[in-house]
Amino acid sequence: MRTSTTVTAAALVIGDEILSGRTRDKNIGTIAGHLNEIGIALREVRVVADDEQAIVEAVNELRARYTYVFTTGGIGPTHDDITADAVAKAFGVPIDIDPRAVALMRPAYEKRGLELNEARLRMARIPAGAELVANSVSIAPGFRIANVIVMAGVPAIMEVMLRDATKQLRTGPKMNAVTIRVERPEADIADLFREHQALYPDVVMGSYPSFNDGRYSADLVLRSPDPTRLAHAAESLTARLREKGLLGA
Amino acid sequence: MRTSTTVTAAALVIGDEILSGRTRDKNIGTIAGHLNEIGIALREVRVVADDEQAIVEAVNELRARYTYVFTTGGIGPTHDDITADAVAKAFGVPIDIDPRAVALMRPAYEKRGLELNEARLRMARIPAGAELVANSVSIAPGFRIANVIVMAGVPAIMEVMLRDATKQLRTGPKMNAVTIRVERPEADIADLFREHQALYPDVVMGSYPSFNDGRYSADLVLRSPDPTRLAHAAESLTARLREKGLLGA
Repeated sequence: MRTSTTVTAAALVIGDEILSGRTRDKNIGTIAGHLNEIGIALREVRVVADDEQAIVEAVNELRARYTYVFTTGGIGPTHDDITADAVAKAFGVPIDIDPRAVALMRPAYEKRGLELNEARLRMARIPAGAELVANSVSIAPGFRIANVIVMAGVPAIMEVMLRDATKQLRTGPKMNAVTIRVERPEADIADLFREHQALYPDVVMGSYPSFNDGRYSADLVLRSPDPTRLAHAAESLTARLREKGLLGA
Repeated sequence: MRTSTTVTAAALVIGDEILSGRTRDKNIGTIAGHLNEIGIALREVRVVADDEQAIVEAVNELRARYTYVFTTGGIGPTHDDITADAVAKAFGVPIDIDPRAVALMRPAYEKRGLELNEARLRMARIPAGAELVANSVSIAPGFRIANVIVMAGVPAIMEVMLRDATKQLRTGPKMNAVTIRVERPEADIADLFREHQALYPDVVMGSYPSFNDGRYSADLVLRSPDPTRLAHAAESLTARLREKGLLGA
């Protein structure tokens, strides 16, 4: 589905290992890139610990504020995986082993010679009223309850869940972007760039500096849902930069 | 300084480029690792857009909740760099060009042949009452106001600011960690691991699964400020895993 109104989202990354510095998060970038591609505007990300109160609070704040909330992490078989229970608590609904999840997991696990033990059945715990999100990698599903999509933390599994879940979601206008790279410190182009932003208030313009081998550069990024307007803004910025000798030959 | 009480922190990453998926954040992992090393417990991370209201709200919520707040991004010379002004607004204090910052920047910029133009002077805007945070890479400073430390977004610059700023901060007990790698799906060790956590409620235990080339593995991570207690918990877990044939020869 596509509508003309903006569809917003937040991501909630759950896991002590990110906050302790042990693991570098890879999911935020994947979620941001995918949502941007399909026309959902990611407005906020939070990372919280494997702590029930922290998860419940964040889920409830974010689901009230954005169209969708995507969580990652904490739905595995070990005692520190408490996300599904915390999400059920946030919604005030019961949670139990879901026969739909077991029906998916049993044959797949048998085929792989894995016992559907108590720990694995823990991964079939789904809050009442939730829909399953498919996991083509390791089968144990994620779920969606109302506007909250609960996904695994392992990047390869998160990715297939994200793709499955977002097929069902409402999307809005897609943002298009043009990047113009300037091989000099951004302070050299700041005045011109500010004036240009004022001429095109409907095109979002940002400058992203880099510093490599002692040399400064900046990516000027222009973003708009309207490709014609965007092309116009980008062409006229390029022309102005060239005119001032700021863009190389 | 070291005290025996826990010192907590949040990180606030500011920038459209992270939320659009254009740039993958590298600062969260660096901050998490460094704070963990020096004995500050990172409890939460948020990523928000270059949006004044979003920044003000997040700064005020987080500074009330944690000992320290570290922000990254949005203190450059271009029009989309609004962090310093938003932080001043969050504290309800005025902001202006700070002579201490200019005194640092002027000679350094002259030496590099860079004009201290209006755009660069924008980087000398510091909220009233703030202390400067040194930037040995590109000179324009960060700052600290009360318990909020404001740093650049460019990773190489963020890192030197983080090291400078944290020298002045209170720290708490350092968390020590031991990792035990198990070359099998975590569901195989979940029961034993849960029992072990119950035996050592004061040692935080987490399981972090990986899935590579069709093979599952899990890192069992034990964390405690008490190295003796930690060693004991890790040795006895290793022994129990071996006993059950779960840890290789």
